[in-house]
Amino acid sequence: MKIVILGGVAAGSKAAAKAKRLLPDAIIDLYTDEKYISYSACGLPYYIQGNFSDYRTLLVRSPEEFEAQGIKVHLQNKAIKIITETKQVLINDLTENRAFLTEYDKLVIATGARPLIPQIENVNLKNVFTVRHIIDGINIREQLLKSKHATIIGSGYIGLEMLEAFVENGLNVTLVEFAPYIAPFFDEDISRIIQEQLKSISNNRFDILTSELVTVFLPDENGNVKIVKTGSGKQFTTDMVIICTGVQPNIEFARESGIAIGETGAIKVNKHMQTNFPDIYACGDCAEKNLLISNTKVWIPLGSTANKEGRTAAINLCGGDEDFEGVLGSSVVRCLALTMSMTGLTERNAFKLGFHPVSAIVTKNDKVGYMPDVNNITLKLVADMTTGLLLGGQAIGAGDADKRINALTAALLGRFTVDEFTRNDLTYAPPFSPTIDPLLNAAQILAKKIRKD
Amino acid sequence: MKIVILGGVAAGSKAAAKAKRLLPDAIIDLYTDEKYISYSACGLPYYIQGNFSDYRTLLVRSPEEFEAQGIKVHLQNKAIKIITETKQVLINDLTENRAFLTEYDKLVIATGARPLIPQIENVNLKNVFTVRHIIDGINIREQLLKSKHATIIGSGYIGLEMLEAFVENGLNVTLVEFAPYIAPFFDEDISRIIQEQLKSISNNRFDILTSELVTVFLPDENGNVKIVKTGSGKQFTTDMVIICTGVQPNIEFARESGIAIGETGAIKVNKHMQTNFPDIYACGDCAEKNLLISNTKVWIPLGSTANKEGRTAAINLCGGDEDFEGVLGSSVVRCLALTMSMTGLTERNAFKLGFHPVSAIVTKNDKVGYMPDVNNITLKLVADMTTGLLLGGQAIGAGDADKRINALTAALLGRFTVDEFTRNDLTYAPPFSPTIDPLLNAAQILAKKIRKD
Repeated sequence: MKIVILGGVAAGSKAAAKAKRLLPDAIIDLYTDEKYISYSACGLPYYIQGNFSDYRTLLVRSPEEFEAQGIKVHLQNKAIKIITETKQVLINDLTENRAFLTEYDKLVIATGARPLIPQIENVNLKNVFTVRHIIDGINIREQLLKSKHATIIGSGYIGLEMLEAFVENGLNVTLVEFAPYIAPFFDEDISRIIQEQLKSISNNRFDILTSELVTVFLPDENGNVKIVKTGSGKQFTTDMVIICTGVQPNIEFARESGIAIGETGAIKVNKHMQTNFPDIYACGDCAEKNLLISNTKVWIPLGSTANKEGRTAAINLCGGDEDFEGVLGSSVVRCLALTMSMTGLTERNAFKLGFHPVSAIVTKNDKVGYMPDVNNITLKLVADMTTGLLLGGQAIGAGDADKRINALTAALLGRFTVDEFTRNDLTYAPPFSPTIDPLLNAAQILAKKIRKD
Repeated sequence: MKIVILGGVAAGSKAAAKAKRLLPDAIIDLYTDEKYISYSACGLPYYIQGNFSDYRTLLVRSPEEFEAQGIKVHLQNKAIKIITETKQVLINDLTENRAFLTEYDKLVIATGARPLIPQIENVNLKNVFTVRHIIDGINIREQLLKSKHATIIGSGYIGLEMLEAFVENGLNVTLVEFAPYIAPFFDEDISRIIQEQLKSISNNRFDILTSELVTVFLPDENGNVKIVKTGSGKQFTTDMVIICTGVQPNIEFARESGIAIGETGAIKVNKHMQTNFPDIYACGDCAEKNLLISNTKVWIPLGSTANKEGRTAAINLCGGDEDFEGVLGSSVVRCLALTMSMTGLTERNAFKLGFHPVSAIVTKNDKVGYMPDVNNITLKLVADMTTGLLLGGQAIGAGDADKRINALTAALLGRFTVDEFTRNDLTYAPPFSPTIDPLLNAAQILAKKIRKD
C-alpha cells in the first residue's frame, strides 16, 4: 500500500501521522512545495507579536520526526498534475527544477489555500507582505522591529490579529477595509460595536478607513513601499503593508487533473473526504465543507477543521469508516482586549440561505457587577421565525466571550429551538457570570419575539 | 388577587417582581424573617475577601424599590404555619414578637436553606461563623481584619471560596474535611488533583486535614474560640472558625402545615413549581429539583436555579403555563487561581443511579502551548457504557475551565451520545484552545473506550 500526501500543514501532516499509526506497513510519501511542514500557521501572528522569539516554536513536528515514524517527507516538491488513469502524480522538485512521476494507491490532496492578492499598482514592492508561511512571519517580525507605521489591508481574522501584533509593539497602524465596517464576517450591528470598542481600548492608536480600496503603492528610493493611495484619493506614508484580504484554495492542478470542484470553488468531497475519484481524498483548506445548520456547501478554511478532516481522510483511506459530518462555522479571534466569536449563521447569511431570521442582541455584565474585573459582553442570537430553530450566535467582549459561543454549538448540532435552549443549565458563580447568564437572557428575549409572531 | 411570598432572597424576590409585572393589580406581600431582602448571598465570600468595601453592594433591590413597584415587604416576619384549609399564614413579627394571620389566594414558599451545624462542643463560641446572611459577611470581614489564622470546616463550594478569601488576605488557614479528600462533590480522582493544585498554587499557605472531624472548640478568656480539637486528637490554635459543612432546607413549618416533602427532604414540587396544594408554590433552596439526566429527584441548592424557579412559579400562579424541567447540576467555584466546574453526573453518582459509567480523564494545555499564559486543564467525561450516552463532565484548571463545562450542558440536554459529541465544532484560535480542544480530545478517548466494549 502506497499513500501519497500532497501538503504538509494541518490536514496533510495529520493525515500522514494518523495513516501511519493505522497502517504501520504502508509506504507514506508526503510532498510539499514549502520549506516547512507541520507548523501552526495560526500562530504566525503571535510570533510576529513577539510572544515567543524562536520561529521553530511554531513547528509541531520536524521532518526528522516524521521520517523516524516511517513517513518520507519531500520538502519543496510541488504537485503539478494527477494522472488518475495510471494513479500517478507528476511532481516538480523545486530545488533542482526537475519533474518526476510517483505512483499512489491512495492519494490525499491537502494543498491548502493561498492569500488572495487584490489589484494594486506596485503590489510587489519590498515590505509588502502576506501572512501564510513561516518565512512570512520571519520577514514581518524583522521589518516590524524597524518600523513605526504599518498598513493592514483587510480586517478579517488575520487582519485583526495583525492589528493586535502591531499595536502591542507600539506601531501606529492604518487599517483599510473595503466593506463599510470592519470585521465584516459578523453582522453589521455587531461589526459596528467591534469598531467602536477597538478604537476605544486602543486609545485610538490606529486609524480605520472603511469603504476604501487601496489602489496604488509608491516606493522609496530603495524599492520599499512608502506611500499608500486609496480609491477615494487619500494617501499616507507607511513602513510596511500586510495584505489580509482573504485566501483562495490551491486547487488549480487538481481541477486540471479532473478532480471535481464544488460550487464554492474548493474541492468537492463526500463525508469520507473522498473526491470524485474514490482513491483520492481531499481535506483541509483546499476542500469544501458541509454547513450543518443549512446542509449547504461552504468554504470556511480553519485550522481546527483541517485537523479533523485530515484524521477522517486517514481513517477512511486505511479501510475504516468514519464520516466527517461538517462544520458549524465556529470561530474566535482576539484583537487586543477584545474577543470576537461566532457559530452558525449570521442574520445576513441566514437570510441568504432562505431562512426567516429573527434576532436578539443584549449587552450585559459578563460576571456579577460587584466583581473587580467585570466587563461588558454583547451577544446576538439568530433564530428562524417560522420554526423557532436556533441558527447561530455572535459574541464580543473581554476575555472569554468565546465561552458563550461554545455553549451554543451543541445546541446547534442538536437542532434546538430557542425555547429548548432557554432551559439550558449553565454554571454560575459571581466570578464567572451573572445569576442569569447573558446567553440565557438573549435566548429568553428571542423566544418571546418568536412566540409573539 | 392576593399573593403572599415567604422569603426574599433569590427565588422569593424574583417571584415577587415577576408576578407584579404580570399582574400589576395583584396585592403582593413578601414576608421574610431576615433584615435584608433581594441580596446576592453568593457574593458574601467576595465581600469578605474585600473585593468591594460596602456590603450594600450585595443588595440587588432595596425594600423601598419593591414598595415603589407596589410590593409590600415585611422584614423580620417569620412564617410559623400555613393553614391550608382557610388559606391563611400565621406569621410572627419578630420585632414585636407578635403573631398574626394573613390571607392568600396564591402562596409562594421560598424560605431557602440554612447552614447545617455539626455536633461540636462549644459550637456557639464567639468568632465561630456560618456564611449565609448579610450580617454573617459583615461579622466575618470584621474579624478577618483582626486575625492571623482561620479555620474552615468543610471544603464544599463555600469552604473553598472562604479559603480564597482568607489566603488572599494573608491569613494562614487550616481546612478540615471529614471526607478523605477535599472538594468531595467531585469524583475522588479529580478531588485529589484539586488538593495537589491548591497546595501548590498557594505555596502551602494553608494546611489541609482530611478524614478529620472537629469535635471541640475551647475558648480564650473573652469567650472567643481559641483551640480547635479533632477526633483523631489533633489540636491547633485559631482566631476564627467558619463552618461550611453544608445546608439544609427550611421546610419544617411547611411540613407541619401538611405540605408534602420529597424523598430528598426538600419540598416536593411539580414542573409548575406547585406543591401538593395547587395554590401553594415552592421554589429556590427549599424546593427539590428534577435531575434531567436521570429524571430523579435531587436537592442541589443554587442561586441560578432559585432565580429560574422563582420566575416559573410567578408565571404559573399568575395564570401562565411554564414548565421548569429541571437541572443538570451545573456548577462552578473558584479558589485562588483554580477554577473547578462540573455538570451532569459524576462517575460515583452515575453508578449510584444505576448507570454503567465509563470515564476518560485528560490533562492538556488550555490553549496552544506557545501562548504566554498557557495553563493545564484537567477534564473528566463520564458516559454510560451500555448506551454510549454522555452523562456528565468535570473540569479543573486556571481561568475559564468552566467554558468546557458550559459547552457540555446543551449536549446533556439533547441526550447526545459521546460519539455525537465528538462531532462538535468548537471555536479555535491559539489564545483560546489547542487545535483539538481538550474536550473533544477527552470525548474521542471515551468514544473509543465505549466502542471497544
